[in-house]
Amino acid sequence: MAYSKRTLGLLKKAGVNEGDWVKVTTPAAGYEGIILPRIDAGNPDALVIKLESGYNAGVEIGPDVNVERIDGNDGQRPERKPASEAAKHLAANLPQISMVSTGGTISAKVDYKLGGVRAALTPEEIYATTPELAEVAGIKSFASPFRTFSENMTPPEWGKIAVLVAKELNSGAKGVIVTHGTDTLHYTAAALGFMLPNLPKPVALVGAQRSPDRGSFDGAQNLLCGAYYAGHSNFAEVAIVMHANSSDDFCNATRGVKARKMHSTRRDAFRPVNDLPIARIWPDGRMEEMKSLGKRDDSAKAVADIRFEGKTALVKAYPGSDPGILDYLVGKKCRGIIVEATALGHVPADTIEKKYSWVPAIKNAIEEGAVVGFATQCLYGTASPYVYETARMLHGMGALYCADMLPEVAYVKLGCMLGRSKDSEKVKKMMLTNSCGEINERHSQEEFLY
Amino acid sequence: MAYSKRTLGLLKKAGVNEGDWVKVTTPAAGYEGIILPRIDAGNPDALVIKLESGYNAGVEIGPDVNVERIDGNDGQRPERKPASEAAKHLAANLPQISMVSTGGTISAKVDYKLGGVRAALTPEEIYATTPELAEVAGIKSFASPFRTFSENMTPPEWGKIAVLVAKELNSGAKGVIVTHGTDTLHYTAAALGFMLPNLPKPVALVGAQRSPDRGSFDGAQNLLCGAYYAGHSNFAEVAIVMHANSSDDFCNATRGVKARKMHSTRRDAFRPVNDLPIARIWPDGRMEEMKSLGKRDDSAKAVADIRFEGKTALVKAYPGSDPGILDYLVGKKCRGIIVEATALGHVPADTIEKKYSWVPAIKNAIEEGAVVGFATQCLYGTASPYVYETARMLHGMGALYCADMLPEVAYVKLGCMLGRSKDSEKVKKMMLTNSCGEINERHSQEEFLY
Repeated sequence: MAYSKRTLGLLKKAGVNEGDWVKVTTPAAGYEGIILPRIDAGNPDALVIKLESGYNAGVEIGPDVNVERIDGNDGQRPERKPASEAAKHLAANLPQISMVSTGGTISAKVDYKLGGVRAALTPEEIYATTPELAEVAGIKSFASPFRTFSENMTPPEWGKIAVLVAKELNSGAKGVIVTHGTDTLHYTAAALGFMLPNLPKPVALVGAQRSPDRGSFDGAQNLLCGAYYAGHSNFAEVAIVMHANSSDDFCNATRGVKARKMHSTRRDAFRPVNDLPIARIWPDGRMEEMKSLGKRDDSAKAVADIRFEGKTALVKAYPGSDPGILDYLVGKKCRGIIVEATALGHVPADTIEKKYSWVPAIKNAIEEGAVVGFATQCLYGTASPYVYETARMLHGMGALYCADMLPEVAYVKLGCMLGRSKDSEKVKKMMLTNSCGEINERHSQEEFLY
Repeated sequence: MAYSKRTLGLLKKAGVNEGDWVKVTTPAAGYEGIILPRIDAGNPDALVIKLESGYNAGVEIGPDVNVERIDGNDGQRPERKPASEAAKHLAANLPQISMVSTGGTISAKVDYKLGGVRAALTPEEIYATTPELAEVAGIKSFASPFRTFSENMTPPEWGKIAVLVAKELNSGAKGVIVTHGTDTLHYTAAALGFMLPNLPKPVALVGAQRSPDRGSFDGAQNLLCGAYYAGHSNFAEVAIVMHANSSDDFCNATRGVKARKMHSTRRDAFRPVNDLPIARIWPDGRMEEMKSLGKRDDSAKAVADIRFEGKTALVKAYPGSDPGILDYLVGKKCRGIIVEATALGHVPADTIEKKYSWVPAIKNAIEEGAVVGFATQCLYGTASPYVYETARMLHGMGALYCADMLPEVAYVKLGCMLGRSKDSEKVKKMMLTNSCGEINERHSQEEFLY
């Protein structure tokens, strides 16, 4: 530790070590939490405390500050309701599911050596965070292809998960739960949708916005609902199963190809966009179908098609944006570009200063053989070339209008389709062919800001 | 016209010319609308008809198709309610406001020569679409610095609007209505927020999702509510005044620096993000304040500070994204980059394949003097470096965490602040200093998916 002599003495006197649960009282405020290891660059008189809220607080140890070691742990999880009668009945004949763990907050624990949290739990340890799971499903196998926070996920990892899921489904699992970080959970959910075409059984993607060592851990409810989705439902889709609202009473199973993380921290951050959830699922096993596609067929085989064209990109058009980005991508031999375009699918075109127009760069990209697709940066609603002149012109030039697909989903799908064909026209056709619910032609009033 | 001989004969026989309102009957369906001019590349036997819905339909003229010229026009606007007693009382002493028109659908009319719609109406003609305006406010001046659809808007245009607005406010206008296309209305709204610091009077940005020649024209209600905001309110903020909901009964005045177009076509597409509206405004003049900052001061001067660093960019980080984009931008001497990062503000960092990591490119951009800021691509919620290791590391490297600012707003603000200072540290400080409501430290439950 590189604390100052004074602070070190004070900590020693209080009997406090890194990793201890402490109470720190300053004249202005009091803090309780776990004392994190010191970072070399920091103020030598400051403690960093991981609060129960999950945030870190830095407190400067002045002469008026009192540090007290608490012989407690990091809080108790609130009591969860026991499984319902319905659940107990089901438990008498438990389905066998598999758990694939990939890291993320749901697998996090505080690492006292390195500071902060690490994606450290094994799938067995994640299972153990939620003892009620034993009443819902038997676990056929535990697997973990890698462990990382999901900001680090890349297309090759999507492929590894898809292969593992197909393997489990084809060796007897009724369904699979994939635990995953939440930052890019929706990208992986979309990728699994496209990489597991004609999926015969349910796959639940489950994460947590609070780590298992916190009282507010949301992963338990998500795991329970995920286990009901994977083991007990007749759905046959990849779904994100996470908290549906802030009262934390049930989860939504949201179609992976229509889902988006819409809040940086809320437990109900995952929302369907231009869609309704597949179902609502309560942690006691009740299930309410809302809009499902495809039904379970336990006799059918799962097939993983993990081909993905890495030279696919997603770029945003906005006022003042540099169309040279497209030339850069074309120079890098990009075969597919999804443009997050404005509204119905427009980009700067007839600009007053010509350097801002994206038209020449788009024309060039298409002539160089790239598939250029437009999705709306509004997120809700549809991209369509049939209303305004700018879009008619871009469409006439060969640009693809990605209907109501989210830009992120259009990107993932384009990578997958380019992996399957070298023929741009064929790829464009596949892009506009609904494969697993990624395109909705009509939207209900309820689907806006659901 | 390059129609086929047969189709040309049929049109001639029916007495139909381009621009006529026609009824076309095929064995399968009937269409009514305006016949648009032919485009050379099209099918020589197809008519393109602009339907009342605003969409274009292509109809192939086979032997079973009947074309009939209708001596009508393109539909009547529905009756709007007369102004309330409250409004009439106010009208006795009408405030003088100014109208600045910049183009967009609110100024659109069908152009029979070129096909499709053009941003053709003068501000006087836009005023004339809504005769009830005469009961709400007097018009001090009409101005139109340029006329374009808003996908073509760029930072220099923002500056022109800001200068004009300040001029009008300083020469006696109680407030200003700026009419504008909706594609990038929220970018302009944010820009006017930053370019008109300490704004003393209300500025209403008003657009339409349906053009004035359509029965479903939404601009009239928006203009009326905008006129009440500009002329009768005591607010002193730039607001987007547009339909609040699908029942079209009132408008929201949404703070320009917290607004986003969240649907490609709905009339209530503009929503506050991480915020509540400033006020609800009914077209009969009722106003309900929800959350306002700053009050009208008619004696204070408006000041336009339109400096903007054009070498500012907005890029998105996602699984499989190429960090070389950052090197490209740095090579182009970019002074500021906003990254649409995942969740709390993460990018691919500790990736399995090192080529996907954004860390070296971010480090390099910062070392080269660029301000690199992180905003959340979730849109709702806050970017914060204090929870996870990846963000702590990026923050330690000098990256800026843009709190709860929308990525688009952070981009606009960064361009403005870089225009005002060459000192990166000063710019970072200004970025985190609330100037006109762009940063909210706390969010109510209601603000999520408002």
